[in-house]
Amino acid sequence: MGKLEFSRGPRCARLHATQQKTSAKDGDAITTREKDYSEWYLDVVRVGELAESSPVRGMMVIKPNGMAIWDAIREYLDAKIKQSGGRNAYFPLMIPQSFLTKEAEHVEGFATECALVTHHRLRLNPETKQMEPDPDSKLDEPLIVRPTSETIIWHMFGRWIGSYRDLPLCINQWANVVRWEMRTRLFLRTAEFLWQEGHTAHESAEEAREKAIEMIDVYEDLCVNQLAIPVIKGIKSPMERFAGAEETYTVEAMMQNGWALQSGTSHFLGQNFAKAFDVTFNTSVEGVTDHVWATSWGVSTRLMGALIMTHSDDSGLCCPPKVAAIQIAIVCIWKKADQKQTVLSAAKDAAARLRSRGYRVELDDREGMRPGAKYYEWERKGVPLRMEMGPRDVEKGSVFCARRIGGPKFGLAVDENFEDSVDDVMDKIQQEMYSTAKRRLDDWTKPVSSYEEMKAALDSGETGFFVAPWKEDDDNEDKIKEDCKATIRCYPMDSQAEAEDKLCFYSGEPATHMAIFARAY
Amino acid sequence: MGKLEFSRGPRCARLHATQQKTSAKDGDAITTREKDYSEWYLDVVRVGELAESSPVRGMMVIKPNGMAIWDAIREYLDAKIKQSGGRNAYFPLMIPQSFLTKEAEHVEGFATECALVTHHRLRLNPETKQMEPDPDSKLDEPLIVRPTSETIIWHMFGRWIGSYRDLPLCINQWANVVRWEMRTRLFLRTAEFLWQEGHTAHESAEEAREKAIEMIDVYEDLCVNQLAIPVIKGIKSPMERFAGAEETYTVEAMMQNGWALQSGTSHFLGQNFAKAFDVTFNTSVEGVTDHVWATSWGVSTRLMGALIMTHSDDSGLCCPPKVAAIQIAIVCIWKKADQKQTVLSAAKDAAARLRSRGYRVELDDREGMRPGAKYYEWERKGVPLRMEMGPRDVEKGSVFCARRIGGPKFGLAVDENFEDSVDDVMDKIQQEMYSTAKRRLDDWTKPVSSYEEMKAALDSGETGFFVAPWKEDDDNEDKIKEDCKATIRCYPMDSQAEAEDKLCFYSGEPATHMAIFARAY
Repeated sequence: MGKLEFSRGPRCARLHATQQKTSAKDGDAITTREKDYSEWYLDVVRVGELAESSPVRGMMVIKPNGMAIWDAIREYLDAKIKQSGGRNAYFPLMIPQSFLTKEAEHVEGFATECALVTHHRLRLNPETKQMEPDPDSKLDEPLIVRPTSETIIWHMFGRWIGSYRDLPLCINQWANVVRWEMRTRLFLRTAEFLWQEGHTAHESAEEAREKAIEMIDVYEDLCVNQLAIPVIKGIKSPMERFAGAEETYTVEAMMQNGWALQSGTSHFLGQNFAKAFDVTFNTSVEGVTDHVWATSWGVSTRLMGALIMTHSDDSGLCCPPKVAAIQIAIVCIWKKADQKQTVLSAAKDAAARLRSRGYRVELDDREGMRPGAKYYEWERKGVPLRMEMGPRDVEKGSVFCARRIGGPKFGLAVDENFEDSVDDVMDKIQQEMYSTAKRRLDDWTKPVSSYEEMKAALDSGETGFFVAPWKEDDDNEDKIKEDCKATIRCYPMDSQAEAEDKLCFYSGEPATHMAIFARAY
Repeated sequence: MGKLEFSRGPRCARLHATQQKTSAKDGDAITTREKDYSEWYLDVVRVGELAESSPVRGMMVIKPNGMAIWDAIREYLDAKIKQSGGRNAYFPLMIPQSFLTKEAEHVEGFATECALVTHHRLRLNPETKQMEPDPDSKLDEPLIVRPTSETIIWHMFGRWIGSYRDLPLCINQWANVVRWEMRTRLFLRTAEFLWQEGHTAHESAEEAREKAIEMIDVYEDLCVNQLAIPVIKGIKSPMERFAGAEETYTVEAMMQNGWALQSGTSHFLGQNFAKAFDVTFNTSVEGVTDHVWATSWGVSTRLMGALIMTHSDDSGLCCPPKVAAIQIAIVCIWKKADQKQTVLSAAKDAAARLRSRGYRVELDDREGMRPGAKYYEWERKGVPLRMEMGPRDVEKGSVFCARRIGGPKFGLAVDENFEDSVDDVMDKIQQEMYSTAKRRLDDWTKPVSSYEEMKAALDSGETGFFVAPWKEDDDNEDKIKEDCKATIRCYPMDSQAEAEDKLCFYSGEPATHMAIFARAY
């Protein structure tokens, strides 16, 4: 567990997750987490070849190793969404300005950071000889590049919904969205990101609320069972709700530095959008119409940031087997020319068998590169399992295995049970990665009995999730944020009963909720 | 084959594929193809619930039935691209204006129809009380919503490529693109569409050209084996080339009205983009550097238009089994209440077995709807195979089957071979749909010996592919387009030898190619 030492002690380490973004490096060194957590994060993104910044301010390029992880997430989640009754559709990238202003809170949430399309043609300016937007091509109404699609989707829902027979309507979209963030960081906060957004319409408030909870459960499953990221499932405080929602459910993960990262949200929208877009339906009671009830829910490429900061270490990326771009790297080793064919042929057989089992396998037969350099490369790139194969291994009919997360190396027989043995190894790695992260979440989630206690801890550089009884109050929430940069991450769904008979740790008044406070990305 | 009568005789029918777009309808009738092919197309899109227009000019909403087809195409093609060595990545939606202008032909191709982002914030105008782009948020340089991604990708390739060891670099992106088309039609020509775009970099011209041809072969396979659309594979004339390409390969399909539809293109880009973005590499020869050689290739949601116009008929959508949103509809039939459970239970069993086999199955147990109305609905929506299941069928242990493409209805035993039998039925439907379309392509591809012959045929309302010896000449190509609205679709790759010793059917000079002329979407 040597590599994970960092993970045990960040409260002492006084980490500073600065907003610094540049990661230009001499050579290819990785900053240690202890030295600069923020810099370390960018280094891991770089050596893992996951993403890099682009010439367009705040927009990133997702590189093949990063995209493979997102594709794996997408494939898993898409199937789960379909199982839950959702169907994929696609809505326009651009939204008329007037649509955004129909839902009052919504416009407030997005109008100040959006990309506006105003012209549809370039021309050569006859005087300056420069290209410029052709004034004759100015649009009558500016279009907003979607920051989220509620408004355009609810306009369409208005066309599609007439009767209770049309309900529930469960639509999902995989898309890119744009939010003009001023301070960006790869994956965590980018001006453009990829996501899925689900939008549903229901007959009753109860059914819609159940749907919102069903989908936050789907996200919890994704985090836990695919990404090996433990999460706390809860409800957002009114201040942290989605713009236009009546209730926002969230899954909150804890990074290695004790900061929180919101990993997925699901919103009960009440009738807000149905009223803004006048979407009514004939109920099953003759002659009675009502506005429909709604949800929306999404996860984005932000999850990639959570994945990196949950599992990686000072040696580079560390990726759970289920979503790794390359799950197994087979490194071929030979010294004499006459060994090459034997080794290569055995390695190809092993790779073929593992690929048939569904694994993403890289066969590393590069020449002119020492095995150690190859090990180093696959380690930095986060490949969960490395197999070394030399002439002696071939003779013995086995491969020599090293796990990215450490532990003793071991031989594995390439016999008729080879694929099953590899399944076991991979399951165990996945499970251990989850357990390690879960232990951290548990260890660093602690009750505080007074606000002063939390404030002192935060001031001393301690991080983690602070759990306290709380009386819901926007002003007090603001004051705390101002005072110690901690925000309410959520009211954990499984511990609300504990608030009974307790007093708010800040105001001293009777508590309405148990709340988790933390610094957050 | 009664339903396909139309497909045999459009040359006589004098079809007019007008540019009219509205499809507002009283009730839900489908215009016949003979009456108005264009109107029929929009009716099929509507009753098939594939897509509809949105409040944003020229941008469509792809509905779940349409999206399921696109998802099936994507899944198949994505695997083929990966097999060919491609890896997915994602590049920014927006491109700095200065990038577009770096490749001269490229800017000419796209500058006059592009969406321009100029501001990043809305404000409430204090005087008019209206929302408007905040003048203080004006961007220093306008951003272009990508019409295609060569420029931004080549900028990044410049960072990634240094040596021959970095080559070949094969990147694919699934994305939305925007081209500000003034005359739009669902799927065929829309201001926003979905596509994949592949971009590759190579050491040599030969290798790049081979890659471009490899990918057009992949598209041919997709059309033929998944969409049951026969195509002619060929090379574009210089006038019809992609803006910035040295050679464009294409697969051209023929619609039921004899018009051509370009279904996929693959470009050999030479060193044009490498030079525009100065992307060089150290060759394997010490001290020698060179610009890299490039390809790009893509297919888009336009394919959906080709699919509809290849197979559908006056009864609605007709979809090949491999990509159908719903492949099998099981219609439950009962009269007495005590039959309901028996029928439902048997139908659910059958559906579960077919789903396990990987089929997309709809179990239609709606009450208060006559079976005939259900048949009508699944027919219009293009479901390839309908199974009817009533008490008698359950007793006999069978289902009664009707194929969307016609032919006698038949019973199918729900025994241990049920799934295999269904595989056979579906394969046969797929094959027959291809054969029907192939027969049409063959029948309507005919040599013409003089330009006058083609002109007379086109003037009389005859359509199809006209094959003629041709001397490459931009001016003559323009004149023909002006004169009879036919364009060169391609120089078919498998018949260029025939041009030898022939004279151009237009200029009378020695032919350089065999060319296919047609009216085209």
